[in-house]
Amino acid sequence: MSGELVIVGLGPGSAGLQTAAAAAALAAASDLVGYGPYVDRVTARPDQVRHVSDNREELARARHALQLAADGRRVAVVSGGDAGVFGMASAVFEAIEHGEAAWRQIEPEVIPGVSAMFAAAARLGAPLGADFCALSLSDNLKPWAVIERRLRAAASAGFVIALYNPLSRARPWQLGAAFDLLRAELPGTTPVMFATAVTRPDERIDVAPLAQADPARADMRTLVLIGNETTRYIAREGRRPFVYSPRSAA
Amino acid sequence: MSGELVIVGLGPGSAGLQTAAAAAALAAASDLVGYGPYVDRVTARPDQVRHVSDNREELARARHALQLAADGRRVAVVSGGDAGVFGMASAVFEAIEHGEAAWRQIEPEVIPGVSAMFAAAARLGAPLGADFCALSLSDNLKPWAVIERRLRAAASAGFVIALYNPLSRARPWQLGAAFDLLRAELPGTTPVMFATAVTRPDERIDVAPLAQADPARADMRTLVLIGNETTRYIAREGRRPFVYSPRSAA
Repeated sequence: MSGELVIVGLGPGSAGLQTAAAAAALAAASDLVGYGPYVDRVTARPDQVRHVSDNREELARARHALQLAADGRRVAVVSGGDAGVFGMASAVFEAIEHGEAAWRQIEPEVIPGVSAMFAAAARLGAPLGADFCALSLSDNLKPWAVIERRLRAAASAGFVIALYNPLSRARPWQLGAAFDLLRAELPGTTPVMFATAVTRPDERIDVAPLAQADPARADMRTLVLIGNETTRYIAREGRRPFVYSPRSAA
Repeated sequence: MSGELVIVGLGPGSAGLQTAAAAAALAAASDLVGYGPYVDRVTARPDQVRHVSDNREELARARHALQLAADGRRVAVVSGGDAGVFGMASAVFEAIEHGEAAWRQIEPEVIPGVSAMFAAAARLGAPLGADFCALSLSDNLKPWAVIERRLRAAASAGFVIALYNPLSRARPWQLGAAFDLLRAELPGTTPVMFATAVTRPDERIDVAPLAQADPARADMRTLVLIGNETTRYIAREGRRPFVYSPRSAA
Protein backbone atom coordinates (compact mmCIF):
# COMPACT_ATOMS: atom_id res chain seq x y z
CA MET A 1 0.00 0.00 0.00
CA SER A 2 1.50 3.25 -1.19
CA GLY A 3 1.60 6.38 0.90
CA GLU A 4 2.12 9.89 -0.39
CA LEU A 5 5.08 11.99 -1.39
CA VAL A 6 5.02 15.76 -1.67
CA ILE A 7 8.05 17.89 -2.48
CA VAL A 8 7.67 21.29 -0.87
CA GLY A 9 9.44 24.56 -1.65
CA LEU A 10 9.67 26.44 1.65
CA GLY A 11 10.50 29.80 0.08
CA PRO A 12 13.57 31.91 0.81
CA GLY A 13 13.29 32.04 4.59
CA SER A 14 10.73 34.43 6.02
CA ALA A 15 7.45 32.80 7.01
CA GLY A 16 5.53 35.45 5.04
CA LEU A 17 6.99 34.14 1.79
CA GLN A 18 5.80 30.58 2.29
CA THR A 19 2.61 29.66 0.42
CA ALA A 20 -0.57 28.35 2.00
CA ALA A 21 -0.23 25.21 -0.14
CA ALA A 22 3.22 24.55 1.36
CA ALA A 23 1.89 25.01 4.90
CA ALA A 24 -1.00 22.63 4.21
CA ALA A 25 1.30 19.98 2.72
CA LEU A 26 3.64 20.17 5.71
CA ALA A 27 0.75 19.89 8.16
CA ALA A 28 -0.56 16.76 6.38
CA ALA A 29 2.80 14.93 6.50
CA SER A 30 3.67 12.08 8.85
CA ASP A 31 7.37 12.38 7.93
CA LEU A 32 9.57 15.38 7.10
CA VAL A 33 12.65 14.67 5.02
CA GLY A 34 15.41 17.12 4.10
CA TYR A 35 18.69 18.86 4.62
CA GLY A 36 18.97 19.87 8.29
CA PRO A 37 18.62 23.67 8.02
CA TYR A 38 15.47 23.29 5.89
CA VAL A 39 13.80 20.72 8.15
CA ASP A 40 14.64 23.04 11.06
CA ARG A 41 12.50 25.75 9.45
CA VAL A 42 9.39 23.58 9.81
CA THR A 43 7.62 23.69 13.16
CA ALA A 44 7.03 19.96 13.49
CA ARG A 45 4.34 18.46 15.69
CA PRO A 46 5.36 15.74 18.18
CA ASP A 47 3.70 13.10 15.96
CA GLN A 48 5.75 14.08 12.90
CA VAL A 49 9.00 12.17 12.31
CA ARG A 50 11.97 14.25 11.18
CA HIS A 51 14.58 12.67 8.86
CA VAL A 52 17.53 15.02 8.63
CA SER A 53 20.45 14.46 6.27
CA ASP A 54 23.58 16.26 5.15
CA ASN A 55 24.07 18.49 2.18
CA ARG A 56 25.21 16.77 -1.03
CA GLU A 57 23.22 13.61 -0.24
CA GLU A 58 20.22 14.50 -2.38
CA LEU A 59 19.87 11.18 -4.17
CA ALA A 60 20.16 9.05 -1.02
CA ARG A 61 17.65 11.37 0.66
CA ALA A 62 15.27 11.04 -2.30
CA ARG A 63 15.49 7.23 -2.18
CA HIS A 64 14.82 7.25 1.55
CA ALA A 65 11.76 9.45 1.05
CA LEU A 66 10.43 7.20 -1.73
CA GLN A 67 10.89 4.10 0.42
CA LEU A 68 9.02 5.74 3.30
CA ALA A 69 6.18 6.61 0.91
CA ALA A 70 6.20 3.09 -0.55
CA ASP A 71 5.85 1.82 3.05
CA GLY A 72 2.66 3.85 3.42
CA ARG A 73 3.94 7.02 5.10
CA ARG A 74 2.84 10.52 4.10
CA VAL A 75 6.17 12.10 3.30
CA ALA A 76 7.05 15.75 2.76
CA VAL A 77 10.49 16.38 1.26
CA VAL A 78 11.49 19.98 1.93
CA SER A 79 13.72 22.32 -0.08
CA GLY A 80 14.59 25.97 0.39
CA GLY A 81 13.18 28.40 -2.19
CA ASP A 82 11.53 26.51 -5.04
CA ALA A 83 12.10 22.75 -4.93
CA GLY A 84 12.37 22.59 -8.74
CA VAL A 85 15.31 25.03 -8.91
CA PHE A 86 18.50 23.26 -7.82
CA GLY A 87 16.36 21.64 -5.12
CA MET A 88 14.99 18.19 -4.29
CA ALA A 89 12.38 17.78 -7.07
CA SER A 90 14.83 16.68 -9.75
CA ALA A 91 16.58 14.28 -7.36
CA VAL A 92 13.27 12.59 -6.52
CA PHE A 93 12.39 12.00 -10.18
CA GLU A 94 15.92 10.76 -10.86
CA ALA A 95 15.53 8.29 -7.99
CA ILE A 96 12.18 7.13 -9.35
CA GLU A 97 13.58 6.56 -12.84
CA HIS A 98 16.46 4.43 -11.61
CA GLY A 99 14.87 2.90 -8.51
CA GLU A 100 12.49 0.21 -7.33
CA ALA A 101 9.47 -0.70 -9.46
CA ALA A 102 7.17 0.06 -6.50
CA TRP A 103 8.29 3.68 -6.51
CA ARG A 104 6.64 4.14 -9.94
CA GLN A 105 3.27 3.73 -8.22
CA ILE A 106 3.91 6.84 -6.13
CA GLU A 107 2.54 10.03 -7.67
CA PRO A 108 4.77 12.73 -6.24
CA GLU A 109 3.31 16.21 -6.03
CA VAL A 110 5.57 19.24 -6.28
CA ILE A 111 4.51 22.44 -4.46
CA PRO A 112 6.34 25.36 -6.06
CA GLY A 113 7.78 28.15 -3.93
CA VAL A 114 9.32 31.62 -4.06
CA SER A 115 12.92 31.10 -5.15
CA ALA A 116 15.94 32.74 -3.52
CA MET A 117 16.70 34.61 -6.74
CA PHE A 118 13.24 36.21 -6.83
CA ALA A 119 13.51 37.24 -3.18
CA ALA A 120 17.00 38.66 -3.81
CA ALA A 121 15.78 40.54 -6.87
CA ALA A 122 12.82 41.97 -4.95
CA ARG A 123 15.12 43.35 -2.22
CA LEU A 124 17.36 44.98 -4.83
CA GLY A 125 14.68 46.42 -7.15
CA ALA A 126 14.06 44.53 -10.37
CA PRO A 127 17.39 43.21 -11.68
CA LEU A 128 15.67 40.16 -13.24
CA GLY A 129 13.32 42.39 -15.27
CA ALA A 130 15.01 41.39 -18.55
CA ASP A 131 15.68 37.92 -19.97
CA PHE A 132 17.72 35.99 -17.41
CA CYS A 133 19.25 32.63 -16.62
CA ALA A 134 19.87 30.61 -13.47
CA LEU A 135 23.09 28.63 -13.30
CA SER A 136 24.59 26.51 -10.52
CA LEU A 137 28.34 27.03 -10.10
CA SER A 138 28.72 23.65 -8.41
CA ASP A 139 30.91 21.32 -10.44
CA ASN A 140 30.05 18.31 -8.28
CA LEU A 141 27.57 17.10 -10.90
CA LYS A 142 28.76 18.69 -14.14
CA PRO A 143 32.16 19.48 -15.62
CA TRP A 144 33.54 22.95 -15.04
CA ALA A 145 33.92 23.30 -18.82
CA VAL A 146 30.11 23.10 -19.19
CA ILE A 147 29.70 25.86 -16.60
CA GLU A 148 32.23 28.05 -18.43
CA ARG A 149 30.45 27.50 -21.75
CA ARG A 150 27.10 28.45 -20.23
CA LEU A 151 28.48 31.54 -18.48
CA ARG A 152 30.05 32.75 -21.71
CA ALA A 153 26.89 32.08 -23.74
CA ALA A 154 24.67 33.83 -21.20
CA ALA A 155 26.88 36.90 -20.91
CA SER A 156 27.50 37.33 -24.62
CA ALA A 157 23.80 36.94 -25.48
CA GLY A 158 22.77 39.52 -22.86
CA PHE A 159 21.05 37.42 -20.21
CA VAL A 160 21.03 38.67 -16.63
CA ILE A 161 22.66 35.85 -14.65
CA ALA A 162 21.67 34.34 -11.30
CA LEU A 163 24.41 32.17 -9.80
CA TYR A 164 23.37 29.46 -7.35
CA ASN A 165 25.90 27.58 -5.17
CA PRO A 166 28.58 30.21 -5.85
CA LEU A 167 31.12 28.66 -3.49
CA SER A 168 31.62 26.51 -0.42
CA ARG A 169 34.53 25.33 1.72
CA ALA A 170 35.00 22.41 -0.67
CA ARG A 171 34.67 24.64 -3.77
CA PRO A 172 36.49 27.87 -2.90
CA TRP A 173 37.65 29.05 -6.34
CA GLN A 174 34.62 28.74 -8.63
CA LEU A 175 33.08 32.17 -8.06
CA GLY A 176 36.40 33.95 -8.64
CA ALA A 177 36.92 31.98 -11.83
CA ALA A 178 33.42 32.90 -12.98
CA PHE A 179 34.06 36.61 -12.33
CA ASP A 180 37.35 36.41 -14.26
CA LEU A 181 35.58 34.80 -17.21
CA LEU A 182 32.75 37.35 -17.14
CA ARG A 183 35.19 40.30 -17.02
CA ALA A 184 36.32 39.25 -20.50
CA GLU A 185 32.71 39.36 -21.76
CA LEU A 186 31.06 42.27 -19.95
CA PRO A 187 31.89 45.90 -19.11
CA GLY A 188 33.64 46.40 -15.74
CA THR A 189 30.73 48.61 -14.70
CA THR A 190 28.21 45.72 -14.88
CA PRO A 191 26.38 45.52 -11.53
CA VAL A 192 27.15 42.45 -9.43
CA MET A 193 24.79 41.80 -6.52
CA PHE A 194 25.52 39.58 -3.52
CA ALA A 195 22.41 38.57 -1.61
CA THR A 196 23.10 36.46 1.48
CA ALA A 197 20.46 34.85 3.72
CA VAL A 198 17.76 36.84 1.92
CA THR A 199 14.66 37.71 4.02
CA ARG A 200 16.28 36.14 7.09
CA PRO A 201 17.35 38.10 10.20
CA ASP A 202 21.02 38.10 9.13
CA GLU A 203 20.30 39.17 5.54
CA ARG A 204 23.21 40.99 3.87
CA ILE A 205 23.06 42.63 0.45
CA ASP A 206 26.00 44.22 -1.38
CA VAL A 207 26.32 45.70 -4.85
CA ALA A 208 29.63 46.21 -6.66
CA PRO A 209 30.75 46.77 -10.23
CA LEU A 210 32.06 43.62 -11.90
CA ALA A 211 35.59 45.09 -12.08
CA GLN A 212 35.70 45.25 -8.27
CA ALA A 213 33.45 42.32 -7.36
CA ASP A 214 35.13 40.33 -4.58
CA PRO A 215 34.22 36.63 -4.36
CA ALA A 216 34.97 36.76 -0.62
CA ARG A 217 31.66 38.61 -0.16
CA ALA A 218 29.85 35.34 -0.90
CA ASP A 219 29.33 32.26 1.22
CA MET A 220 27.20 29.12 0.92
CA ARG A 221 24.01 31.09 1.57
CA THR A 222 24.69 33.74 -1.06
CA LEU A 223 22.87 34.20 -4.33
CA VAL A 224 24.89 36.24 -6.83
CA LEU A 225 23.14 38.25 -9.56
CA ILE A 226 25.00 39.79 -12.50
CA GLY A 227 23.33 42.42 -14.66
CA ASN A 228 23.32 42.60 -18.43
CA GLU A 229 24.42 45.66 -20.37
CA THR A 230 21.11 47.46 -19.81
CA THR A 231 20.97 46.94 -16.01
CA ARG A 232 20.87 50.31 -14.22
CA TYR A 233 21.21 51.90 -10.79
CA ILE A 234 18.80 54.38 -9.24
CA ALA A 235 20.79 56.30 -6.62
CA ARG A 236 19.17 56.90 -3.22
CA GLU A 237 20.41 59.21 -0.52
CA GLY A 238 22.04 57.34 2.35
CA ARG A 239 20.96 53.90 1.13
CA ARG A 240 22.22 51.41 -1.39
CA PRO A 241 20.89 52.11 -4.88
CA PHE A 242 18.02 50.28 -6.47
CA VAL A 243 19.10 48.05 -9.35
CA TYR A 244 16.79 47.23 -12.24
CA SER A 245 16.94 45.80 -15.74
CA PRO A 246 14.65 47.57 -18.21
CA ARG A 247 12.25 45.40 -20.17
CA SER A 248 13.67 46.72 -23.43
CA ALA A 249 16.97 45.52 -24.89
CA ALA A 250 19.84 47.78 -25.89
CA MET B 1 3.43 63.87 2.03
CA SER B 2 4.31 60.56 0.39
CA GLY B 3 2.17 57.47 0.57
CA GLU B 4 3.32 53.93 -0.04
CA LEU B 5 3.90 51.75 -3.06
CA VAL B 6 4.12 47.98 -2.97
CA ILE B 7 4.49 45.80 -6.06
CA VAL B 8 2.88 42.42 -5.41
CA GLY B 9 3.38 39.13 -7.20
CA LEU B 10 0.05 37.29 -6.96
CA GLY B 11 1.44 33.89 -7.94
CA PRO B 12 0.27 31.76 -10.84
CA GLY B 13 -3.43 31.70 -10.08
CA SER B 14 -4.56 29.37 -7.31
CA ALA B 15 -5.08 31.08 -3.95
CA GLY B 16 -2.92 28.43 -2.25
CA LEU B 17 0.13 29.63 -4.16
CA GLN B 18 -0.15 33.22 -2.98
CA THR B 19 2.14 34.16 -0.08
CA ALA B 20 1.00 35.55 3.26
CA ALA B 21 3.12 38.64 2.58
CA ALA B 22 1.21 39.29 -0.65
CA ALA B 23 -2.14 38.91 1.13
CA ALA B 24 -1.04 41.33 3.87
CA ALA B 25 0.18 43.91 1.35
CA LEU B 26 -3.10 43.73 -0.57
CA ALA B 27 -5.13 44.11 2.61
CA ALA B 28 -3.15 47.22 3.62
CA ALA B 29 -3.68 49.01 0.29
CA SER B 30 -6.07 51.88 -0.34
CA ASP B 31 -5.65 51.50 -4.12
CA LEU B 32 -5.17 48.45 -6.34
CA VAL B 33 -3.48 49.08 -9.70
CA GLY B 34 -2.97 46.58 -12.51
CA TYR B 35 -3.96 44.78 -15.66
CA GLY B 36 -7.64 43.84 -15.44
CA PRO B 37 -7.39 40.05 -15.06
CA TYR B 38 -4.86 40.43 -12.23
CA VAL B 39 -6.84 43.07 -10.33
CA ASP B 40 -9.87 40.79 -10.73
CA ARG B 41 -8.05 38.09 -8.77
CA VAL B 42 -7.96 40.31 -5.68
CA THR B 43 -11.05 40.29 -3.47
CA ALA B 44 -11.23 44.04 -2.92
CA ARG B 45 -13.03 45.64 0.03
CA PRO B 46 -15.59 48.38 -0.73
CA ASP B 47 -13.15 51.01 0.58
CA GLN B 48 -10.39 49.94 -1.82
CA VAL B 49 -10.21 51.77 -5.15
CA ARG B 50 -9.49 49.63 -8.22
CA HIS B 51 -7.52 51.13 -11.14
CA VAL B 52 -7.70 48.73 -14.05
CA SER B 53 -5.73 49.20 -17.25
CA ASP B 54 -5.09 47.35 -20.48
CA ASN B 55 -2.22 45.05 -21.31
CA ARG B 56 0.83 46.69 -22.91
CA GLU B 57 0.36 49.89 -20.87
CA GLU B 58 2.85 48.99 -18.19
CA LEU B 59 4.73 52.28 -18.12
CA ALA B 60 1.61 54.47 -18.01
CA ARG B 61 0.24 52.22 -15.28
CA ALA B 62 3.49 52.52 -13.31
CA ARG B 63 3.41 56.33 -13.57
CA HIS B 64 -0.21 56.41 -12.42
CA ALA B 65 0.65 54.23 -9.42
CA LEU B 66 3.61 56.45 -8.51
CA GLN B 67 1.49 59.58 -8.73
CA LEU B 68 -1.16 58.03 -6.47
CA ALA B 69 1.57 57.16 -3.96
CA ALA B 70 3.06 60.67 -4.22
CA ASP B 71 -0.42 62.00 -3.43
CA GLY B 72 -0.41 60.04 -0.19
CA ARG B 73 -2.29 56.87 -1.18
CA ARG B 74 -1.23 53.36 -0.15
CA VAL B 75 -0.89 51.72 -3.54
CA ALA B 76 -0.53 48.04 -4.41
CA VAL B 77 0.49 47.34 -8.01
CA VAL B 78 -0.36 43.73 -8.84
CA SER B 79 1.29 41.32 -11.28
CA GLY B 80 0.66 37.66 -12.01
CA GLY B 81 3.36 35.22 -10.92
CA ASP B 82 6.43 37.07 -9.67
CA ALA B 83 6.31 40.83 -10.31
CA GLY B 84 10.04 40.91 -11.06
CA VAL B 85 9.81 38.41 -13.96
CA PHE B 86 8.34 40.16 -17.02
CA GLY B 87 5.96 41.86 -14.57
CA MET B 88 5.39 45.34 -13.17
CA ALA B 89 8.48 45.76 -10.95
CA SER B 90 10.83 46.75 -13.76
CA ALA B 91 8.27 49.18 -15.21
CA VAL B 92 7.90 50.94 -11.85
CA PHE B 93 11.66 51.46 -11.47
CA GLU B 94 11.89 52.63 -15.08
CA ALA B 95 9.14 55.17 -14.37
CA ILE B 96 10.96 56.35 -11.23
CA GLU B 97 14.23 56.84 -13.07
CA HIS B 98 12.69 58.95 -15.81
CA GLY B 99 9.84 60.55 -13.85
CA GLU B 100 9.03 63.32 -11.38
CA ALA B 101 11.53 64.24 -8.67
CA ALA B 102 8.90 63.57 -6.00
CA TRP B 103 8.71 59.91 -7.05
CA ARG B 104 12.30 59.41 -5.85
CA GLN B 105 11.04 59.93 -2.28
CA ILE B 106 8.85 56.83 -2.60
CA GLU B 107 10.47 53.64 -1.39
CA PRO B 108 8.73 50.93 -3.37
CA GLU B 109 8.65 47.48 -1.84
CA VAL B 110 8.56 44.40 -4.07
CA ILE B 111 6.84 41.26 -2.72
CA PRO B 112 8.13 38.29 -4.69
CA GLY B 113 5.80 35.51 -5.80
CA VAL B 114 5.67 32.02 -7.27
CA SER B 115 6.29 32.45 -10.99
CA ALA B 116 4.24 30.80 -13.74
CA MET B 117 7.30 28.86 -14.88
CA PHE B 118 7.82 27.31 -11.43
CA ALA B 119 4.15 26.34 -11.21
CA ALA B 120 4.30 24.86 -14.71
CA ALA B 121 7.47 22.94 -13.87
CA ALA B 122 5.92 21.60 -10.67
CA ARG B 123 2.91 20.23 -12.57
CA LEU B 124 5.17 18.51 -15.09
CA GLY B 125 7.78 17.07 -12.71
CA ALA B 126 11.10 18.92 -12.55
CA PRO B 127 11.98 20.16 -16.05
CA LEU B 128 13.81 23.21 -14.61
CA GLY B 129 16.07 20.99 -12.50
CA ALA B 130 19.13 21.89 -14.62
CA ASP B 131 20.51 25.32 -15.53
CA PHE B 132 17.74 27.27 -17.26
CA CYS B 133 16.81 30.62 -18.72
CA ALA B 134 13.63 32.69 -18.97
CA LEU B 135 13.07 34.61 -22.17
CA SER B 136 10.17 36.76 -23.34
CA LEU B 137 9.25 36.19 -26.99
CA SER B 138 7.59 39.60 -27.21
CA ASP B 139 9.35 41.85 -29.69
CA ASN B 140 7.38 44.92 -28.62
CA LEU B 141 10.31 46.11 -26.51
CA LYS B 142 13.33 44.44 -28.08
CA PRO B 143 14.36 43.59 -31.64
CA TRP B 144 13.53 40.10 -32.87
CA ALA B 145 17.24 39.66 -33.73
CA VAL B 146 18.09 39.91 -30.00
CA ILE B 147 15.54 37.21 -29.21
CA GLU B 148 16.99 34.95 -31.91
CA ARG B 149 20.51 35.46 -30.60
CA ARG B 150 19.43 34.60 -27.04
CA LEU B 151 17.46 31.52 -28.15
CA ARG B 152 20.43 30.22 -30.11
CA ALA B 153 22.88 30.91 -27.25
CA ALA B 154 20.62 29.25 -24.68
CA ALA B 155 20.00 26.14 -26.78
CA SER B 156 23.58 25.63 -27.87
CA ALA B 157 24.92 26.07 -24.32
CA GLY B 158 22.43 23.55 -22.90
CA PHE B 159 20.06 25.73 -20.89
CA VAL B 160 16.49 24.54 -20.38
CA ILE B 161 14.36 27.38 -21.80
CA ALA B 162 11.19 28.97 -20.41
CA LEU B 163 9.38 31.12 -22.97
CA TYR B 164 7.14 33.89 -21.66
CA ASN B 165 4.68 35.77 -23.93
CA PRO B 166 4.96 33.08 -26.61
CA LEU B 167 2.31 34.65 -28.86
CA SER B 168 -0.77 36.84 -28.99
CA ARG B 169 -3.23 38.01 -31.62
CA ALA B 170 -0.87 40.88 -32.45
CA ARG B 171 2.20 38.59 -32.48
CA PRO B 172 1.03 35.35 -34.11
CA TRP B 173 4.29 34.08 -35.70
CA GLN B 174 6.96 34.41 -32.99
CA LEU B 175 6.54 31.01 -31.33
CA GLY B 176 6.65 29.16 -34.66
CA ALA B 177 9.78 31.07 -35.64
CA ALA B 178 11.35 30.18 -32.29
CA PHE B 179 10.56 26.47 -32.79
CA ASP B 180 12.07 26.59 -36.30
CA LEU B 181 15.23 28.18 -34.96
CA LEU B 182 15.48 25.66 -32.09
CA ARG B 183 15.01 22.68 -34.44
CA ALA B 184 18.32 23.64 -36.03
CA GLU B 185 20.05 23.58 -32.62
CA LEU B 186 18.41 20.73 -30.68
CA PRO B 187 17.41 17.09 -31.34
CA GLY B 188 13.86 16.64 -32.62
CA THR B 189 13.16 14.49 -29.56
CA THR B 190 13.71 17.41 -27.15
CA PRO B 191 10.62 17.69 -24.90
CA VAL B 192 8.49 20.80 -25.44
CA MET B 193 5.94 21.54 -22.73
CA PHE B 194 2.88 23.79 -23.12
CA ALA B 195 1.42 24.91 -19.80
CA THR B 196 -1.70 27.05 -20.12
CA ALA B 197 -3.54 28.74 -17.23
CA VAL B 198 -1.46 26.76 -14.77
CA THR B 199 -3.13 25.99 -11.39
CA ARG B 200 -6.38 27.58 -12.63
CA PRO B 201 -9.63 25.66 -13.25
CA ASP B 202 -9.05 25.58 -17.03
CA GLU B 203 -5.40 24.45 -16.77
CA ARG B 204 -4.16 22.56 -19.83
CA ILE B 205 -0.78 20.86 -20.09
CA ASP B 206 0.64 19.20 -23.22
CA VAL B 207 4.01 17.65 -23.96
CA ALA B 208 5.36 17.05 -27.48
CA PRO B 209 8.75 16.41 -29.04
CA LEU B 210 10.29 19.50 -30.62
CA ALA B 211 9.99 17.97 -34.11
CA GLN B 212 6.18 17.88 -33.71
CA ALA B 213 5.63 20.87 -31.42
CA ASP B 214 2.69 22.87 -32.77
CA PRO B 215 2.65 26.60 -31.92
CA ALA B 216 -1.16 26.53 -32.15
CA ARG B 217 -1.20 24.73 -28.79
CA ALA B 218 -0.20 28.02 -27.14
CA ASP B 219 -2.18 31.16 -26.41
CA MET B 220 -1.54 34.31 -24.38
CA ARG B 221 -1.81 32.41 -21.11
CA THR B 222 0.66 29.69 -22.08
CA LEU B 223 4.13 29.21 -20.69
CA VAL B 224 6.32 27.10 -22.98
CA LEU B 225 9.21 25.06 -21.57
CA ILE B 226 11.86 23.44 -23.76
CA GLY B 227 14.18 20.80 -22.34
CA ASN B 228 17.91 20.56 -22.81
CA GLU B 229 19.63 17.43 -24.11
CA THR B 230 19.49 15.71 -20.71
CA THR B 231 15.75 16.28 -20.10
CA ARG B 232 13.95 12.96 -19.70
CA TYR B 233 10.47 11.43 -19.55
CA ILE B 234 9.22 9.01 -16.92
CA ALA B 235 6.33 7.11 -18.50
CA ARG B 236 3.17 6.60 -16.43
CA GLU B 237 0.30 4.32 -17.25
CA GLY B 238 -2.73 6.22 -18.55
CA ARG B 239 -1.34 9.65 -17.71
CA ARG B 240 1.04 12.08 -19.34
CA PRO B 241 4.66 11.32 -18.47
CA PHE B 242 6.64 13.17 -15.85
CA VAL B 243 9.38 15.34 -17.35
CA TYR B 244 12.56 16.13 -15.45
CA SER B 245 16.02 17.51 -16.08
CA PRO B 246 18.74 15.73 -14.10
CA ARG B 247 21.03 17.90 -12.01
CA SER B 248 24.06 16.50 -13.82
CA ALA B 249 25.11 17.62 -17.29
CA ALA B 250 25.68 15.33 -20.25
